[in-house]
Amino acid sequence: MPRVFNFSAGPATLPEPVLQQARDELLDWNGMGASIIEISHRGPEFMRVAAQAEADLRELISIPDDYAVLFLAGGATTAQALIALNFADPGQAVDYVLSGHWSKTALKQVRPYVDPRIAATSEESGFRDVPPPSSWTLSPDAAYVHYTANETIHGVEFHDVPDVDGAALIGDFSSSIASAPLDVSRFGVLYAGAQKNLGPVGVSVLIIRRDLLERSGQPRAEILDYRAHVRGESMLNTPPTWNWYLAGLVFRWMLDEGGVEEFARRNARKAALLYQAIDGSGGFYRNEVAFGARSRMNVPFFLHDDVLNAAFLSESKAAGLLALKGHRVLGGMRASIYNAMPEAGVQALVDFMGDFARRHG
Amino acid sequence: MPRVFNFSAGPATLPEPVLQQARDELLDWNGMGASIIEISHRGPEFMRVAAQAEADLRELISIPDDYAVLFLAGGATTAQALIALNFADPGQAVDYVLSGHWSKTALKQVRPYVDPRIAATSEESGFRDVPPPSSWTLSPDAAYVHYTANETIHGVEFHDVPDVDGAALIGDFSSSIASAPLDVSRFGVLYAGAQKNLGPVGVSVLIIRRDLLERSGQPRAEILDYRAHVRGESMLNTPPTWNWYLAGLVFRWMLDEGGVEEFARRNARKAALLYQAIDGSGGFYRNEVAFGARSRMNVPFFLHDDVLNAAFLSESKAAGLLALKGHRVLGGMRASIYNAMPEAGVQALVDFMGDFARRHG
Repeated sequence: MPRVFNFSAGPATLPEPVLQQARDELLDWNGMGASIIEISHRGPEFMRVAAQAEADLRELISIPDDYAVLFLAGGATTAQALIALNFADPGQAVDYVLSGHWSKTALKQVRPYVDPRIAATSEESGFRDVPPPSSWTLSPDAAYVHYTANETIHGVEFHDVPDVDGAALIGDFSSSIASAPLDVSRFGVLYAGAQKNLGPVGVSVLIIRRDLLERSGQPRAEILDYRAHVRGESMLNTPPTWNWYLAGLVFRWMLDEGGVEEFARRNARKAALLYQAIDGSGGFYRNEVAFGARSRMNVPFFLHDDVLNAAFLSESKAAGLLALKGHRVLGGMRASIYNAMPEAGVQALVDFMGDFARRHG
Repeated sequence: MPRVFNFSAGPATLPEPVLQQARDELLDWNGMGASIIEISHRGPEFMRVAAQAEADLRELISIPDDYAVLFLAGGATTAQALIALNFADPGQAVDYVLSGHWSKTALKQVRPYVDPRIAATSEESGFRDVPPPSSWTLSPDAAYVHYTANETIHGVEFHDVPDVDGAALIGDFSSSIASAPLDVSRFGVLYAGAQKNLGPVGVSVLIIRRDLLERSGQPRAEILDYRAHVRGESMLNTPPTWNWYLAGLVFRWMLDEGGVEEFARRNARKAALLYQAIDGSGGFYRNEVAFGARSRMNVPFFLHDDVLNAAFLSESKAAGLLALKGHRVLGGMRASIYNAMPEAGVQALVDFMGDFARRHG
């Protein structure tokens, strides 16, 4: 079957040239007579792949030298727990900003270890907006301030880095990393599961300002200790080598396409096209997010009549538009339009939506 | 380049038919027009893959119904830490049997959480033997007894399941799972990183007797809690879907080839062939492990003169025999001959070793 346009929220669509390269060298990588899946992570061949992936990510999103970069197994949820273990004392105050489902998950993970304070929440609006940073109540004794830059389910996004007055800012960028230029130096820690904007499922990226690694944190096993992972160059144990390699191919593809500046332009055009189609549908489709908090990455929308949902999903699938069903928390529809979603995919979706509205309006 | 015989200790060689299938469907899986890497873990398509992989693993190694099976990100080292968090009270005694590098690693991970006792060790022999179970000193108040069924670096293996007199036995089977029939009902927990005998790097398997999940364990984040993972069917967060899928292809391949009984026969023949070549080399090669503790999976060996090591490695590589360099802890050579290593590969190695000895003897 020809490739479809896949709007899955994550695991998500990958660049076709990346998949083609991975396919072509799956049984024989780099003339070794073996797959890159099959070779030692500590051999010089994979070590070069790992180092190149880190160098390319550093170039791609302009990571300063005083930040360590980790490529680890486990996703963002694991990172959410380990952040408290590594960067806060037992029972210490930590500030959490709640802007949707995933920031609530992040807070839940740390409850056994710290004293989480809710610095701000937009839950009373059904997470249809983000709490403006000017409204955040920060604790002077907090170890850090955590927020979720983009909420995959609720489709809200902070479009600027919040000013937290010198506190260590920790950002979950799972669904928006590398989608636009970002001043990494504003952060204590940035983390992301790779399976949305960075590539394959099964590996996560942490970007940690090195001075935070001097914090003693809490009693923990070495394998849960980011200091040990930094010392071990993400190879404290066998890393998810193939996933890391595939992420590296995505980084290289993004650089070759023009880097984050180019993807920021593409992503802005894609989001504008889709929101215009929704807003201009005369109420057939609607997005409920406050205008200034609309996500460029995940666009939840509803049909004016839920009875049409099943037809929308089956007809869109037949039209080669995959995975538009909304998350069960919200219902409705959702289109995830990460870096690897081509503009042609969003155009095809918009064309389908217009056609569907005409036929069912 | 044609495929070589790859003796890597892990990540390790995979069955060629599995890699061929993965390659052929990498861009379009199951007629979806998308890769299995790109689709939702919660969609019906991947859920079927996940369920089939579990069913096939249950059939392959005869897992009783009162055991839960988890497929998780992170490797065995992560499991080693979480085992203490999940199955022991804070500071509780736990018994560890030390038979090599990896059992020492397992013990190191739990020190922050419990009171580990060394029930037995063969360190005084340089881990050239395993401590016989009759010599183990078990603590009556221990939460569990942990041992490492096969030591990848030292090349020693327990060939029978130890009798621990009703204690909860936890076995690290990372490098020998599914290599021969095993009575799973003798265990409280079996765990394994998949990248040796079960398939791809990036996913680990835990087999947990369900009554152990009733233990309260220690304060921990939900993402570090095996009860939550069991409730969430290994999808508490986004799992490493592609790695899980590839492991499933390996399970299916093993069943089609005749199951663990057949692999036990092949593995016994492979190990016998290689050890005979070493023992019959008139001292040109030597393996230092006590006869009854020799691993069927990882065969470390030394040349009679270390000055020949570089020539052995370069000539074996030129002969299509990859990754024979020993682990840095021991030096020398090591051949890992897991399930996916064909008998022809071991024959080619033995032929090369004989030829090398003649030319350099």
